[in-house]
Amino acid sequence: MPDKTFSVKNNVTLAAIQMDVKFGEKDVNISNSLKMIREAAEKGAKLIVLPELCNTGYAFSTSEEAYSLAERVPEGKTVKAWIEIAKELKVYICGGIVELDDDGIRLFNSSVLIGPDGYIGKYRKLHLWNTEKYFFEPGDMGLPVFNTPMGRIGMLICYDMWFPEAFRILALKGADVVCCPVNWVDSRNEEIRKMGTNMAIVNANVNNVFVVAADRFGRERNAYFPGRSIIVDPNGLTCAPVGSHDKEEIVIAEVDLFSSRRLNWSDTNVKIKDRRTDVYELYFK
Amino acid sequence: MPDKTFSVKNNVTLAAIQMDVKFGEKDVNISNSLKMIREAAEKGAKLIVLPELCNTGYAFSTSEEAYSLAERVPEGKTVKAWIEIAKELKVYICGGIVELDDDGIRLFNSSVLIGPDGYIGKYRKLHLWNTEKYFFEPGDMGLPVFNTPMGRIGMLICYDMWFPEAFRILALKGADVVCCPVNWVDSRNEEIRKMGTNMAIVNANVNNVFVVAADRFGRERNAYFPGRSIIVDPNGLTCAPVGSHDKEEIVIAEVDLFSSRRLNWSDTNVKIKDRRTDVYELYFK
Repeated sequence: MPDKTFSVKNNVTLAAIQMDVKFGEKDVNISNSLKMIREAAEKGAKLIVLPELCNTGYAFSTSEEAYSLAERVPEGKTVKAWIEIAKELKVYICGGIVELDDDGIRLFNSSVLIGPDGYIGKYRKLHLWNTEKYFFEPGDMGLPVFNTPMGRIGMLICYDMWFPEAFRILALKGADVVCCPVNWVDSRNEEIRKMGTNMAIVNANVNNVFVVAADRFGRERNAYFPGRSIIVDPNGLTCAPVGSHDKEEIVIAEVDLFSSRRLNWSDTNVKIKDRRTDVYELYFK
Repeated sequence: MPDKTFSVKNNVTLAAIQMDVKFGEKDVNISNSLKMIREAAEKGAKLIVLPELCNTGYAFSTSEEAYSLAERVPEGKTVKAWIEIAKELKVYICGGIVELDDDGIRLFNSSVLIGPDGYIGKYRKLHLWNTEKYFFEPGDMGLPVFNTPMGRIGMLICYDMWFPEAFRILALKGADVVCCPVNWVDSRNEEIRKMGTNMAIVNANVNNVFVVAADRFGRERNAYFPGRSIIVDPNGLTCAPVGSHDKEEIVIAEVDLFSSRRLNWSDTNVKIKDRRTDVYELYFK
């Protein structure tokens, strides 16, 4: 008989920072991110996710604009500021920036992961959306999963969430949490406006992982963002009310991070392991 | 310049039959399915989807019970009745039954596809849920897509919808519509109750296909079903109000079936083709 009385937990507070971003005003955005990181940490947050391109804004109109706001990782100004505050507050931070490659030429839509001991690693967005294809190179570092004492962390950025393969690969590599810095596309159509949160819910559920998606809200040039930042558990259930459509806020929830390792759905079903790889292999290569 | 003024449509009315099913009462269920198929056809439906195991009920407690209700395809009583009415009304029908294999031994949780000219083909559920693993063999015929003059049709059954690989493969094989006979699991938790429709919405959206999911409602032995049958377009938008939680009804919508072939989402994005197969191939085999 399995001993169901022996139970251990890994209580961790997750936070999605739904911050306002001022296009091109890097110092303003960094300082605002630090303020909100501090606020989240004061509420107990241990893993804090910021939006995509949250230090620069999104709607570039020229490559020069994008270059002028880019920085190297981890030497750049934004990441240095996040490393400092992560050490001070003993938290993990994931946030999106424009990355200038070491070659000084290529730009990536990247996210960084930082912990209490400093810089951990980065992810370069694989699936570029719309005008991003003019300014950024498609990600060339695959889908890394980073080990931390808290758990295993993967990252996806916005349109990546529309590719179930990406979530699946992170789950197969053992991710407990997928951090998603996003700038979702807004719409007056309520069903489209909810598509981002639907992606988070469904992919968390089918992959048995936590998903933390931090979005912006409001207008920037001709782009609109719907807010609705979300934290979802491995059953696809929201851990806190979904973020609003129109204001800065912190979506925050305490969860048992070990629940991503409990894969049994019924007496006979083990999520992930019910996959029919014998059938899939004909197509997924 | 592409000629955007030249536009053709393929208007087809899709229907999901949310029918009540009486456990073990095959004749009653067949006759009820025929009545509702006729009603849908009178409203203009051309492709009509019925629930999973809709001629037998779901909650078998012994193998003998399942065997006693099984039939060969297409010789069995249920499929014969559906072939007859499909010819009479000139419609396509997809519905779920317990299939007895030609070997007279193995049972499958199958769906059949029937057209105005008769039997087209069948699908055997790949991913078995819970006690289904006691009574059925896992599907051994892959993920077929059937060509019809109306469009290309694939099928998935219930828990299959929790495997994004299955939808993806059908889309890569060119499916325009994925017909989903289901017996979703109900819950008092409203978020869990919506998980089936979430699967339909997200997988339609990311794969640019129509999804028609026909569910049951109510109680049978110890199983509960949430209704909420749904028709979704390739943008993930519902084409008709989602079915109710507690009554028989026909969810029906006229759509342009060609929209599954218009894959361009933006000036630079083509759904499906934005996939990073160079990255996925390391894992999907």
